[in-house]
Amino acid sequence: MSALRFPDLPPSEPQGSDLLAQERARTTFSAHDLSNYLYGEEYLERQEKMLTLIEDEPAFDKSNRYFLGRTERFAGALKKDHALVKLAQEQKWNAEEFMQADLLIDESGPFGLHRSMFMPTLVSQGTEEQHEKFLKPSLRYEIIGCYAQTEIGHGSNVQGIETTATYIPETDEFEFHTPYLTACKWWIGGLGKAANHAVVMARLITAGKDYGPHAFVVPIRSMEDHTLLPGVMAGDIGPKFGFNTTDNGCMWFDHYRAPRISLLARYSSVKPGSGEYVKPPNSKLSYGTMVLIRASLVGLARLGLAKAATIATRYSAIRRQFVDKDSPKKMGKEVIETPVLDYSMQQYRLFPIIAAAYACHFTSKEMMRLYYLNIKNMASGNFSLLADVHASSSGLKSLTTTMAAASIEECRRACGGHGFSSFSGLPLMLQDYAPNVTWEGDNYMITQQTGRYLFKSFRELVAKRASGKFSASAITNPTLAYMNTYLDNPNLKCPATSSAHFHNPEIQLAAYGHRAAYLVAEAVHALDVEKRSWNSMLVEIYNASVAHCQLILVQNFIMGIRGDMPQPEGVAAPILAPTAKAALTDLSDLFALHQIHKQPGEFLTSGYIDAKHVSMMGKAIMDLMENKIRPNAVGFVDAFAFPDYYLNSALGRFDGKVYEAYTEMATREPINQTEVVEGYEQYIKPFTNPHGKQGKTIQARL
Amino acid sequence: MSALRFPDLPPSEPQGSDLLAQERARTTFSAHDLSNYLYGEEYLERQEKMLTLIEDEPAFDKSNRYFLGRTERFAGALKKDHALVKLAQEQKWNAEEFMQADLLIDESGPFGLHRSMFMPTLVSQGTEEQHEKFLKPSLRYEIIGCYAQTEIGHGSNVQGIETTATYIPETDEFEFHTPYLTACKWWIGGLGKAANHAVVMARLITAGKDYGPHAFVVPIRSMEDHTLLPGVMAGDIGPKFGFNTTDNGCMWFDHYRAPRISLLARYSSVKPGSGEYVKPPNSKLSYGTMVLIRASLVGLARLGLAKAATIATRYSAIRRQFVDKDSPKKMGKEVIETPVLDYSMQQYRLFPIIAAAYACHFTSKEMMRLYYLNIKNMASGNFSLLADVHASSSGLKSLTTTMAAASIEECRRACGGHGFSSFSGLPLMLQDYAPNVTWEGDNYMITQQTGRYLFKSFRELVAKRASGKFSASAITNPTLAYMNTYLDNPNLKCPATSSAHFHNPEIQLAAYGHRAAYLVAEAVHALDVEKRSWNSMLVEIYNASVAHCQLILVQNFIMGIRGDMPQPEGVAAPILAPTAKAALTDLSDLFALHQIHKQPGEFLTSGYIDAKHVSMMGKAIMDLMENKIRPNAVGFVDAFAFPDYYLNSALGRFDGKVYEAYTEMATREPINQTEVVEGYEQYIKPFTNPHGKQGKTIQARL
Repeated sequence: MSALRFPDLPPSEPQGSDLLAQERARTTFSAHDLSNYLYGEEYLERQEKMLTLIEDEPAFDKSNRYFLGRTERFAGALKKDHALVKLAQEQKWNAEEFMQADLLIDESGPFGLHRSMFMPTLVSQGTEEQHEKFLKPSLRYEIIGCYAQTEIGHGSNVQGIETTATYIPETDEFEFHTPYLTACKWWIGGLGKAANHAVVMARLITAGKDYGPHAFVVPIRSMEDHTLLPGVMAGDIGPKFGFNTTDNGCMWFDHYRAPRISLLARYSSVKPGSGEYVKPPNSKLSYGTMVLIRASLVGLARLGLAKAATIATRYSAIRRQFVDKDSPKKMGKEVIETPVLDYSMQQYRLFPIIAAAYACHFTSKEMMRLYYLNIKNMASGNFSLLADVHASSSGLKSLTTTMAAASIEECRRACGGHGFSSFSGLPLMLQDYAPNVTWEGDNYMITQQTGRYLFKSFRELVAKRASGKFSASAITNPTLAYMNTYLDNPNLKCPATSSAHFHNPEIQLAAYGHRAAYLVAEAVHALDVEKRSWNSMLVEIYNASVAHCQLILVQNFIMGIRGDMPQPEGVAAPILAPTAKAALTDLSDLFALHQIHKQPGEFLTSGYIDAKHVSMMGKAIMDLMENKIRPNAVGFVDAFAFPDYYLNSALGRFDGKVYEAYTEMATREPINQTEVVEGYEQYIKPFTNPHGKQGKTIQARL
Repeated sequence: MSALRFPDLPPSEPQGSDLLAQERARTTFSAHDLSNYLYGEEYLERQEKMLTLIEDEPAFDKSNRYFLGRTERFAGALKKDHALVKLAQEQKWNAEEFMQADLLIDESGPFGLHRSMFMPTLVSQGTEEQHEKFLKPSLRYEIIGCYAQTEIGHGSNVQGIETTATYIPETDEFEFHTPYLTACKWWIGGLGKAANHAVVMARLITAGKDYGPHAFVVPIRSMEDHTLLPGVMAGDIGPKFGFNTTDNGCMWFDHYRAPRISLLARYSSVKPGSGEYVKPPNSKLSYGTMVLIRASLVGLARLGLAKAATIATRYSAIRRQFVDKDSPKKMGKEVIETPVLDYSMQQYRLFPIIAAAYACHFTSKEMMRLYYLNIKNMASGNFSLLADVHASSSGLKSLTTTMAAASIEECRRACGGHGFSSFSGLPLMLQDYAPNVTWEGDNYMITQQTGRYLFKSFRELVAKRASGKFSASAITNPTLAYMNTYLDNPNLKCPATSSAHFHNPEIQLAAYGHRAAYLVAEAVHALDVEKRSWNSMLVEIYNASVAHCQLILVQNFIMGIRGDMPQPEGVAAPILAPTAKAALTDLSDLFALHQIHKQPGEFLTSGYIDAKHVSMMGKAIMDLMENKIRPNAVGFVDAFAFPDYYLNSALGRFDGKVYEAYTEMATREPINQTEVVEGYEQYIKPFTNPHGKQGKTIQARL
């Protein structure tokens, strides 16, 4: 029996390609210019070049991605990672080219953590001797590593891990041991099957004393045949919501020995023989890396938002439903069903997501700039930026990844039923994105770091203002600036008297600043005056962090458009064409106002705005969405410049041939490769044709 | 090479089983009594009986569910559906027993739509002749059917479908045809592979006129060998976010003929020969079925909330993280890490979900009662309940399924990293639950039906009050009652002056009623006075529907505890033990207050409450959660009475042996069945041991 062949029919008029062409014709700016502003020409050229190199390589083919089970997908990812490294070696790619290819292929793999965690840890915590011994072969992939910190019973609280590494003076070795099931390493990407080495976080015990978690590097699988080394048990932890192309693994040690050089000794070490522990210097240095990771997660949030918005927006311009009787849509003389993008509810769902993608774009750029500036400062002993940058990066990681996860799901639903099909690209995107809200600091937990900093800053500011030695003009830190404005007048009221006033960025910033400062002031009062426990305040702390970080996003968006965003040293500010600038300003207004309008509670209780303002903002938003943003919606997502290969979505195609692509993908479904389903004889026929009758007889019986 | 064997270590102290035992010991009520109140003894006994029958049947085994790809899972579901029908026939199960078994097995399958849509449509829309010809063989599964309404280009707007059924007088047949790709049937459960018949919604064309969509029943696959009949092309639509055990299918007709009897003719028909169309009577009758489906989705939302809450709550009592310094937890004399359930943020995330599950329980019961009452009324020509019940069921379907989908994901995240593992049970639960927010009326779209009813009621009430013929005491409809209270005094202020006052259900109901009426009044003003278009009001309409339905949930929860919930005729009200009643009252308070506290915007703009009230509610909530609900949290979820077989979750086990079950599941991971990964020789060894060197040489080289 042969595979099914679906009929080759065209969709009814109007065609998706015509609808998208119509959208693009009425965009008020050049999507290409806006892409250049966002990414720079060099980036876009590199993307083009890498796309050409990988798109047609069988190892990077995406056409079967949605059909395969976990076992097959993992096998494919191993093949893909191998091919990627080989190609990179052959073509002598630089780091940016590698990252670009990896991004376009868009599939986690068994070698991913080797690059993102194992080698960086060797770099930052290893000595030169260790670089020679472990890092050099790692760069050639002779060593393939993983980063084994989390245990099955211990996640966020690293101090609680139970795996031990005991120094044995007699042999100058460490003995690694897993004392309990709860100490089993778990979730370690690449450990399940691929890695032959691991960075292991274990409690360093020497001379009878427990010095807490330290990083070690040890071989775990044989370099000869990849079997597990004696004393090590490791395997895969099984299927997950997403990320199934990575072999997250588990590991137990049974009195496993490794030489003393396994302790990564750049900062702390153990003296041979005596086992005397040598303490690390300033521990603040390690915050730098955390800031980098969290800032890069803001960038990934931007990516998730932008990808999902691209698919949902393009498809919403094509998908039509009902006729809006008050304003029927015509194509030529014919009344057609209204594209769902014309419905105000669809706009209220999608346009803020487009806006959020742009907001995160500018903040992610700014966080990276601050990261490098801070690293430079710290190298010269200046730690002034560190606390603010660390606090913001924690809160922003939490806020933006929460936004992105919710928005991908919202985009999925906004595609109606078809968002549920794997071919939309959105289910897998959602599943693979999901860990971002948990890893590198659970999104609820890490806001405590932001809260702590905000409360400390507030208390210091209040004390300084009371000291008499205070000058408002000396404040350069934006956090202190909005707190100071609030303290000048906690009862300030919004001066807006019409919808139009809310397009004023100063009013937007004042609303966000007042609300953030109000929440911080209330929390500090509850902690310091009412003496409420920290635990009882976790909800308020979270809310204060969100308010602070929403302000940052609004601020950076406004600055990013104005062109007065600080640039990294030696980098010229990109130029934004006036038409694109006007269009982006609409998005920035929407971003600022929509969040207030949708959840006005804290803005109202802060006293800055009242019910009338909320209603004015509602009108401003509706006007923006219908008249300003709607015509540019497709242009805004086109400017993200995602190739079809990258999106891998029937609904999000650039050319609008949605239904053609969708049905074509369905023909490749494995169970469509036979006309009669496997299992028919066993499981269906016993009911439908129990006596094996021939056609005519059956029709008579029915 | 053999499968991996993980070490057999115990978790470190305290054990999960001890922690859960401790929780259960301090519960203030009997979980068993509460289960009885919720379900009745008969239900619980039936569950027990069915569990015994199915738990050990290989066809219903769940132990491999999380490992299999779509193709294998579909094959398993076909086997399962076959076994289920066979067992039901052998054991002569009644409908309730069948439903119970199906619920416990908890996996959609290829025969599901045959039961839930195909046969019910035959029953409600078929003539006696059609019952004889189609329904009887369907009950024996000789006919296996599906319900083909949705087209790839047409979902919610049924009037827009393009498939035609043209009456051919010459042969007394209908000719079915798919004119465009957009007319292809899509998403049809059971059509992909299993069904041999379909109910097809197609435009009835007769005597040159298009009468719009009508239901037909036609054979699509051969009764002899299950091949597609000539003129029919059908297949599976491919992989999806969830529901992959169902063969959602697509179908094209190419001038396919079927006899006139294929038109389901209970309400409308075509006269033979002339092709004259006979119109249907009152179309309102069909709303009854829609109410039933939407009411049953409220029940499924309850189930989703309760299942997810059970897993996350039990695991949060076991999972420990950090030491809360203000209040360290002890087990005997030892300070242990604090169970995450003791953190206020975890409580703020999970306890409202437990409360929502109970809220939906009572509302789902009440909706079913109203459905049957309305059916009885309509049969005697009384349509007085219909509009209210239809409006509420639409809005409640939207609200409760949105809540449930968000809550399952929240529970998944509240399990930390392990919520990302398939073994938690939460990823698959989320994926399979997801379509509920889209099908049977997209959750944004259908609230327009609720809005329309609310606005109409409000306008009529205003007119009646102005007419002079109005008596408030004559109002029996609760919707009119809260609107009337609002109209009596739109500026009413909440009288509460302390946290304690918010435990008063009358104050809770007044806040919800005032806010709902305010939103309706504002929307009616915008539509009628400001003449805003319907499209521009969709956000406000959605919000009004949510407000109305939240009030219903709060109302029914309060009544459900008080015991003054109306009962179906002839059914005695169940008895709630005083300890359980007190505990449930805490949950009801939390449910009412948490929603206001979390999103106070509309309550504030309605003018009923102010910023001080929000702060009082915050205190009331914290007190409730910490002192009242925390000790009973495990008891509340135990009362849902879900067997471990049903939950299929390592984290949600009744006995608390979380880590043991979790690692045991990982040993069964397919890629753990060999020590060295398949693909090592091809994809890893070329990097790690390119020259095939032996052990010693390699160590030296490194």
